[in-house]
Amino acid sequence: MSSFGESHGAALGIVVDGCPPGLALTEADLMGDIERRRTGKSRHTSQRREPDQVRILSGVFEGFTTGAPIGLLVDNVDQRPKDYSRIKDQFRPGHADYTYHMKYGFRDYRGGGRSSARETVMRVAAGGIARKYLQEKAGINIYGYVRQIGPLRFDVVDPASAYDNPFFCPDPSRLKEVEQYMDQLRKSGDSIGARVDTIATGVPVGLGEPVFDKLDADIAHAMMSINAVKGVEIGAGFASVEQKGTEHRDEITPTGFKTNHAGGTLGGISSGQDIVVSSAYKPTSSLRLECDTVDHQGQPVKVVTHGRHDPCVGLRATPIAEAMLAIVLMDHYLRNRAQNTDVDTKLKPIPGQA
Amino acid sequence: MSSFGESHGAALGIVVDGCPPGLALTEADLMGDIERRRTGKSRHTSQRREPDQVRILSGVFEGFTTGAPIGLLVDNVDQRPKDYSRIKDQFRPGHADYTYHMKYGFRDYRGGGRSSARETVMRVAAGGIARKYLQEKAGINIYGYVRQIGPLRFDVVDPASAYDNPFFCPDPSRLKEVEQYMDQLRKSGDSIGARVDTIATGVPVGLGEPVFDKLDADIAHAMMSINAVKGVEIGAGFASVEQKGTEHRDEITPTGFKTNHAGGTLGGISSGQDIVVSSAYKPTSSLRLECDTVDHQGQPVKVVTHGRHDPCVGLRATPIAEAMLAIVLMDHYLRNRAQNTDVDTKLKPIPGQA
Amino acid sequence: MSSFGESHGAALGIVVDGCPPGLALTEADLMGDIERRRTGKSRHTSQRREPDQVRILSGVFEGFTTGAPIGLLVDNVDQRPKDYSRIKDQFRPGHADYTYHMKYGFRDYRGGGRSSARETVMRVAAGGIARKYLQEKAGINIYGYVRQIGPLRFDVVDPASAYDNPFFCPDPSRLKEVEQYMDQLRKSGDSIGARVDTIATGVPVGLGEPVFDKLDADIAHAMMSINAVKGVEIGAGFASVEQKGTEHRDEITPTGFKTNHAGGTLGGISSGQDIVVSSAYKPTSSLRLECDTVDHQGQPVKVVTHGRHDPCVGLRATPIAEAMLAIVLMDHYLRNRAQNTDVDTKLKPIPGQA
Amino acid sequence: MSSFGESHGAALGIVVDGCPPGLALTEADLMGDIERRRTGKSRHTSQRREPDQVRILSGVFEGFTTGAPIGLLVDNVDQRPKDYSRIKDQFRPGHADYTYHMKYGFRDYRGGGRSSARETVMRVAAGGIARKYLQEKAGINIYGYVRQIGPLRFDVVDPASAYDNPFFCPDPSRLKEVEQYMDQLRKSGDSIGARVDTIATGVPVGLGEPVFDKLDADIAHAMMSINAVKGVEIGAGFASVEQKGTEHRDEITPTGFKTNHAGGTLGGISSGQDIVVSSAYKPTSSLRLECDTVDHQGQPVKVVTHGRHDPCVGLRATPIAEAMLAIVLMDHYLRNRAQNTDVDTKLKPIPGQA
Repeated sequence: MSSFGESHGAALGIVVDGCPPGLALTEADLMGDIERRRTGKSRHTSQRREPDQVRILSGVFEGFTTGAPIGLLVDNVDQRPKDYSRIKDQFRPGHADYTYHMKYGFRDYRGGGRSSARETVMRVAAGGIARKYLQEKAGINIYGYVRQIGPLRFDVVDPASAYDNPFFCPDPSRLKEVEQYMDQLRKSGDSIGARVDTIATGVPVGLGEPVFDKLDADIAHAMMSINAVKGVEIGAGFASVEQKGTEHRDEITPTGFKTNHAGGTLGGISSGQDIVVSSAYKPTSSLRLECDTVDHQGQPVKVVTHGRHDPCVGLRATPIAEAMLAIVLMDHYLRNRAQNTDVDTKLKPIPGQA
Repeated sequence: MSSFGESHGAALGIVVDGCPPGLALTEADLMGDIERRRTGKSRHTSQRREPDQVRILSGVFEGFTTGAPIGLLVDNVDQRPKDYSRIKDQFRPGHADYTYHMKYGFRDYRGGGRSSARETVMRVAAGGIARKYLQEKAGINIYGYVRQIGPLRFDVVDPASAYDNPFFCPDPSRLKEVEQYMDQLRKSGDSIGARVDTIATGVPVGLGEPVFDKLDADIAHAMMSINAVKGVEIGAGFASVEQKGTEHRDEITPTGFKTNHAGGTLGGISSGQDIVVSSAYKPTSSLRLECDTVDHQGQPVKVVTHGRHDPCVGLRATPIAEAMLAIVLMDHYLRNRAQNTDVDTKLKPIPGQA
Repeated sequence: MSSFGESHGAALGIVVDGCPPGLALTEADLMGDIERRRTGKSRHTSQRREPDQVRILSGVFEGFTTGAPIGLLVDNVDQRPKDYSRIKDQFRPGHADYTYHMKYGFRDYRGGGRSSARETVMRVAAGGIARKYLQEKAGINIYGYVRQIGPLRFDVVDPASAYDNPFFCPDPSRLKEVEQYMDQLRKSGDSIGARVDTIATGVPVGLGEPVFDKLDADIAHAMMSINAVKGVEIGAGFASVEQKGTEHRDEITPTGFKTNHAGGTLGGISSGQDIVVSSAYKPTSSLRLECDTVDHQGQPVKVVTHGRHDPCVGLRATPIAEAMLAIVLMDHYLRNRAQNTDVDTKLKPIPGQA
Repeated sequence: MSSFGESHGAALGIVVDGCPPGLALTEADLMGDIERRRTGKSRHTSQRREPDQVRILSGVFEGFTTGAPIGLLVDNVDQRPKDYSRIKDQFRPGHADYTYHMKYGFRDYRGGGRSSARETVMRVAAGGIARKYLQEKAGINIYGYVRQIGPLRFDVVDPASAYDNPFFCPDPSRLKEVEQYMDQLRKSGDSIGARVDTIATGVPVGLGEPVFDKLDADIAHAMMSINAVKGVEIGAGFASVEQKGTEHRDEITPTGFKTNHAGGTLGGISSGQDIVVSSAYKPTSSLRLECDTVDHQGQPVKVVTHGRHDPCVGLRATPIAEAMLAIVLMDHYLRNRAQNTDVDTKLKPIPGQA
């Protein structure tokens, strides 16, 4: 997977190499997830309006993947680089302006350039391919929801319902409350963090390389590579700090594991239980509330960010995190096949259960 | 970096390729960190007694690295494979026994084989090279401590003192309390989780590839690849879920950042502030307290783990986490040099501060 | 570098990641080499007419590379997939039809799909970036010519003149003869092989990883990855089989090497002398002269290839081989910088000379 | 695969990661090939006497590979670093002394250090694992012979007999002649080049990634990475320069290909025919015949190399080239399995034939 493109450049793209041949694939297959991530659909997300129409430029012939690299392209339509001219010579706190400038000597200041979360549209597109493959060929399904927005923690009452509201909230009874919270937040000009859970079901036992490229290590890498993520947990995560061994260890019976504190991996290898991942999204720093910073001469200035931003970037993160989990599982599914296709254990897998 | 070796095999080894030439290096340089990780030094860790003497087999000539691959070897001395014969046909809950068996068809059951934390001795050895290079050539220093053991949370009163007690506790006033807690725990036969903080100071601005291989993504990968880790945070971590943007964003002044919620990275690139990482260690599942599991025929059995185990694996994790952070920083230091050696920003770096 | 695209698909593309920032770059900079490779310019190459206009979609801002991935795209314009419908169910000897079919289960039969040499347009585009960087930042220049077409061997009288004739022939006095040979060949319906030489001057001492990724190994890999190449030589190449050590070894004097049998590498590392590479191109197998093959049922059939083909694919290979050499040198230039930026040898390089 | 070790260091080693589990493997399995490569067995090779006893340190348990990394070690026994003290400050022409010094700032001058062909013992050891796997699990066999020593070109009368003479010559009727030639050469103090052919039979259709990592590109890379190799050919190789398309294309019939000019690959993918590779070895430059060079001050000096050297390094190259071919085929066998395990072509493979 190799991607390119800036927030306000001509287009964004990605090359997906190594996809098995014979997967039925159309652009429509990818648009569902892309739509879920898209901006401008409600007042609670950035008002930038991008159709985000993906084009498959290669690797698919007569409706099926051929095994050749799949090139995907999304044109940028609603560019407004002028919005950004005023911050051209300033470093926005909490953004990558300063670090890009110091690393590369200069930067594409239009909407964050390469550092913009706009880049994630291609992850979702590529993840859509992995997702479809995993579902059809391996019986693996991936879903997610927002478990917390600032002070609001949700029970997972109906995870499927998270796809039907702009907050990806899994508890329909809380929607009114969330809406009020977000409206008030937007009016205040401030932003808030969020926690997103991502789950994979139907994962076979055996995925993951057991030392450096543990399955959970690669998942942590994938999640932490998403813009704004500051923490990742597998299974019990930080709660395991206070757990005793007798509590944490998931006992095994002939009908399955009794619990899933491990979150679906043991020794870096999938156990057949659900993979359960949680990630923390920081609040965006692009605010119309003034703050201190410096300019290119190192002089103190006040900065205010106008433009079209998400008051809670975590809100649109669910499909991105799902895509990243799909990509990691796909990679390990294929890697495991390379080494272990011939393995015959003579054991029946222990039934997995969340 | 490519490693090999099992818990009760002949030896463990690692190849470190790409180390710059001209670094003064002896085996003694690596033994300090290895000693800090070593078992059998107090009653609070595993009683396996391994000298862990590392040998440099190549890549060093007349006291300096030559640029050729550095081969490191540690012989296993205190093997007691017989200890494990009774669990040969059982799957220990919370261990990799089951997943290894299902992935590979069979497994080295002697002390977990490749899945044992014994493997981390080579990480510490390799990390020692990175650490010495970073310190001498780049002014980067790395340290760490245990911030929490089960219910006991420590203030960071004196981080340097963490190297002087068997608990890596940074608050000398709590040592008595910790000792009592650990003694009681050991007698109970149970185990407990821990939280370890790892900090790098003096990191220059500009390390990290800004999309998939963000510096924080690679750090998360490195930490999650350590045995028993279930969660990773950079900077504010999961606390950022409840932060507002006005609180989280680290404002900038001509004399430095006002805060470090970001933990030293912005947009996946180091900012010049301290890199601050926190990781969660689950309690070990190797307990002499019986629990349910199944055997190779899928039949229910009771399992008890004898042998020599750590009641809190997090206790010895500090040097391992430091080594992994050193390795990631070293990689990115060299990667950044490849692409950006010629960059001249004309800007002075903003002074970093924790 | 990650590329995509088929001969008769919508477009071809490539992502170039890791290019240093600050290189002045426009589409026009890349078109020179692309033009040299382009078909349909004389009667001696395929009559497919593609404008091959490359677009830079990302990674360049205000005229300079930014360090972000550079996305390049070339649209296919002159697709005539119908030309290929008759060979849909047959395997053309000497082509990848059969191997693609057996590897992937089916294939894009339109003009060879991914296996078409049309894919090399993106190599030339990407190579153009490497070439410009090497020339401007490192003083490395790359050129090439056709040294042999079937029975016709050329003296290297004026290598620069090779850019001015459709045969890339470095001896202007032979052009008439070559033209007659090619006209006669085309009329006969047959095709012929060729040998191409590629040279890099100004290469600094020290590029190349000395064991598996020797500079010459990576060059051999790059050349052999070009469609139709069957052999690669560095320096004396196969002639060294009959050389004695006293003849082959390039003696050294204070004013330079006496000879360059080594072709610019010693122990896999560049020596400062010119890098001299030679590659062999097989004759194309797409001929209007009938031959034996089998169809998808394994039944014997006669096959004839119509369509627009090159009677000597080696003729257009010069810019492709130059691009591949540029890409390898660029990679090793950056890799060497990662490890060895700080090296100070206190020795003056030995003057290189061909 | 990651290797380490110098000619006169403590030991040489290699880590082989990703080997499928379940392969029966002992040290004895690897010694056959190592013995064939070993020095000091006849007067025609270097007189350095190394037992080259390989030790398997990990990755094998109860006689079978476990899927964990296999660590292999060979101790250096017959080190004589003093032999080299006199060339400490001189650059031997045709050797890597100068390039190592300029790349790394200094060098291990004992017998070439890392640049010595002694490093290839670990390639042969690692290749032995690949070889055994390919033979037992995939029906692929690899063999080789010396086809030319300087002016002496051999017919391939009996390839198996090449294993029974010190020259790896496949024509028993020529042995006397070769012996006389080599004796005379050794007495003269000079050295000579050689050509080695390597063949793989039973290779299934479908191995190789069709653009940059073509099977033949990876083979060329592997061969050119062997010390002293200056050229690589697949199938017809450089002879294809003078071939017409009607001659080169291998026509297909229901009972097989009529010829094998392609050398077993089409479009970078194995065709099911024999893989046929030829490589050129330069004559060693370590001669007791004096020549011109410079010292570390750039001053002209005369250099003479004493010590124990091979008058024809190509003589011992056969097992090394076989090992490298085995490693490449193994990699592609596993890579292909990752992507294409599910492919069902419904076509019978065309019978391969050399």
